[in-house]
Amino acid sequence: MQRTPIAFLGSLDAAEEERYRAALSAAMPEEVVRPFRMLTQAERAAVEIAIVANPDPSEVAQLPRLAWIQSLWAGVERLVRDLGPGAPPIVRLVDPELARTMAEAVLAWTYYLQRDMPAYRRQQETGLWRQRPYRAPADTTVGLLGLGALGKAAAQRLVQAGFRVAAWTRSAPAEDGSLAGVATAFGPDGLPDLLGRSDIVVCLLPLTAETHGLLDAGRLAAMKPGAALINVARGAIVVTDALIAALDTGHLEHAVLDVFETEPLPTASPLWRHPKITVLPHVTGPTNHGSAAAVVASNLRAYRETRRVPAAVDVARGY
Amino acid sequence: MQRTPIAFLGSLDAAEEERYRAALSAAMPEEVVRPFRMLTQAERAAVEIAIVANPDPSEVAQLPRLAWIQSLWAGVERLVRDLGPGAPPIVRLVDPELARTMAEAVLAWTYYLQRDMPAYRRQQETGLWRQRPYRAPADTTVGLLGLGALGKAAAQRLVQAGFRVAAWTRSAPAEDGSLAGVATAFGPDGLPDLLGRSDIVVCLLPLTAETHGLLDAGRLAAMKPGAALINVARGAIVVTDALIAALDTGHLEHAVLDVFETEPLPTASPLWRHPKITVLPHVTGPTNHGSAAAVVASNLRAYRETRRVPAAVDVARGY
Ligand SMILES: NC(=O)c1ccc[n+]([C@@H]2O[C@H](COP(=O)([O-])OP(=O)(O)OC[C@H]3O[C@@H](n4cnc5c(N)ncnc54)[C@H](OP(=O)(O)O)[C@@H]3O)[C@@H](O)[C@H]2O)c1
Ligand SMILES: NC(=O)c1ccc[n+]([C@@H]2O[C@H](COP(=O)([O-])OP(=O)(O)OC[C@H]3O[C@@H](n4cnc5c(N)ncnc54)[C@H](OP(=O)(O)O)[C@@H]3O)[C@@H](O)[C@H]2O)c1
Repeated sequence: MQRTPIAFLGSLDAAEEERYRAALSAAMPEEVVRPFRMLTQAERAAVEIAIVANPDPSEVAQLPRLAWIQSLWAGVERLVRDLGPGAPPIVRLVDPELARTMAEAVLAWTYYLQRDMPAYRRQQETGLWRQRPYRAPADTTVGLLGLGALGKAAAQRLVQAGFRVAAWTRSAPAEDGSLAGVATAFGPDGLPDLLGRSDIVVCLLPLTAETHGLLDAGRLAAMKPGAALINVARGAIVVTDALIAALDTGHLEHAVLDVFETEPLPTASPLWRHPKITVLPHVTGPTNHGSAAAVVASNLRAYRETRRVPAAVDVARGY
Repeated sequence: MQRTPIAFLGSLDAAEEERYRAALSAAMPEEVVRPFRMLTQAERAAVEIAIVANPDPSEVAQLPRLAWIQSLWAGVERLVRDLGPGAPPIVRLVDPELARTMAEAVLAWTYYLQRDMPAYRRQQETGLWRQRPYRAPADTTVGLLGLGALGKAAAQRLVQAGFRVAAWTRSAPAEDGSLAGVATAFGPDGLPDLLGRSDIVVCLLPLTAETHGLLDAGRLAAMKPGAALINVARGAIVVTDALIAALDTGHLEHAVLDVFETEPLPTASPLWRHPKITVLPHVTGPTNHGSAAAVVASNLRAYRETRRVPAAVDVARGY
């Protein structure tokens, strides 16, 4: 049987597209993955599956028989918004290697804050030799916002490193034993308490209608005085001006930001120059083309065998 | 039986001395610990054990019946030098809580370097948004110089975090299974190879005649191009000018220094202002008075029971 090719849609630069295509053909030599622009009219009419990375919605609309869409990103808020409610099922990337690197980075930035690296950096600038009190992980509460594929991996890594870990989700978490040592709370009522007792708050939420602007002036004010924020999810979850104000009044001690409403972060942004903000250029969860391709290949094989579409994003919920 | 008091000798500020004395009397209420200045002549003549923190050698000389000396520090190079070859046995602090905090910090500074935080800091200063290639722990070799009480704990922590770990010691390490996953080398011949393949070199050696100035221009040149150095042992093990030169030529990428030949680091030191050096004010292994006192108490109890002096420093070897 001659399979229809898989469409590859995205606005990647040529080198990055080539890395993905090479990794995908290595992971599933049995499939033909072809960029949208190279598909014939007949192929476009027949294509069942598309692999996408920031695709042009008008191209997606030219694939009438699409059964599902495999995203190469874990965060799909843009795809959900661009394709609208009538889109075929969207399967996002759930890559254990991504979870590993995200969890590693969350631990790395947590240590950076727990060990007062930003404050020692400021001391170095003025030649000040002064030891700050040491705070052990066992006396440091890290509050995770979001406990999905990435949040769970981060929680386990932090528990293993001896931190006190609390986490917040939308719905009551399953009691499957994977969250041993993590104090969980859920829903809007659970948030103020978690914010109030966390020394470090880590945002790992998806960007949805509910989480957009979630960390506003009021919620930042509910954070523990002297606490720090790590945002590795999406920029728009945090209200930038409110964050700057909370740092300037001294209510919050520091913020590590890996994500921004506009990326690359515009040169004019005050975030670049704020002494209590560490700006990272979206490097927390770098793409591993090999592991991403392996996950995509396994989704495709399962579909070829069973004709069942892999677990898809709940478009109404937004993640 | 009326026990002779234990002498407490040190040049600590009053608050710090009080913290130690409070912790020591909580840990061993059965003993009397008395500052040297408060001992009567008769007591000085009878004292068998001294607990010391940077003691005045002339005071130590006034305790003729001293059977052994318990140091409150892990590093005893100054004590060994000040008391000279005729001194009573010196027992240094081997505190599992110190090993835990040192290992934690070694992992924290390793992540700081592996995740390119210094480079992103420099990018932030100029508003540059650029992702640097990600290097996974499995592709990053951390070379530990020294694998004693602290080095071993650090090695285990790094192995657990997925780094490739190599280590260098003076004598062949015991094969007791505690070093699973660590590639060991020893003696002068083992050093160049370890330096040549480590992406991050961590110094955890004691300061001795052999290690003084060990990391000189030649040994720094033997390090892998682009590698980084973490020194959490003693400042004098690294030749400062040679380190600055190796950073300035670009041979080395960065150094995290927690220890210095003179502490506090003098304001005039060029280390403060070097863009490729992170200066920390000796905060890697903060003293935990409670755990230190518990270790001292256990040494004292063992001695009271058995009259055997705990394992002491080899003064000729210097550690
Ligand atoms: N910086 C980077 O390099 C990078 C890389 C990859 C991904 N990301 C970001 O990380 C995000 C999280 O990824 P993931 O794979 O862990 O997502 P996920 O598996 O979908 O998990 C999302 C978590 O957030 C919780 N949540 C969602 N809406 C909520 C609400 N309104 N209130 C409370 N909790 C809510 C969910 O709660 P329930 O458990 O109740 O559903 C779930 O625990 C992605 O959406 C993406 O934006 C960043
Ligand atoms: N920054 C801080 O806050 C802080 C806090 C505490 C301690 N320290 C420093 O950390 C140092 C290490 O402490 P530790 O308790 O781990 O010491 P340790 O138990 O005495 O171990 C010393 C290690 O260094 C090795 N070594 C000694 N001389 C050597 C040489 N010439 N060549 C190669 N290897 C050599 C030893 O080799 P062998 O195994 O063959 O004997 C051993 O593995 C202390 O001396 C102190 O200076 C720093």
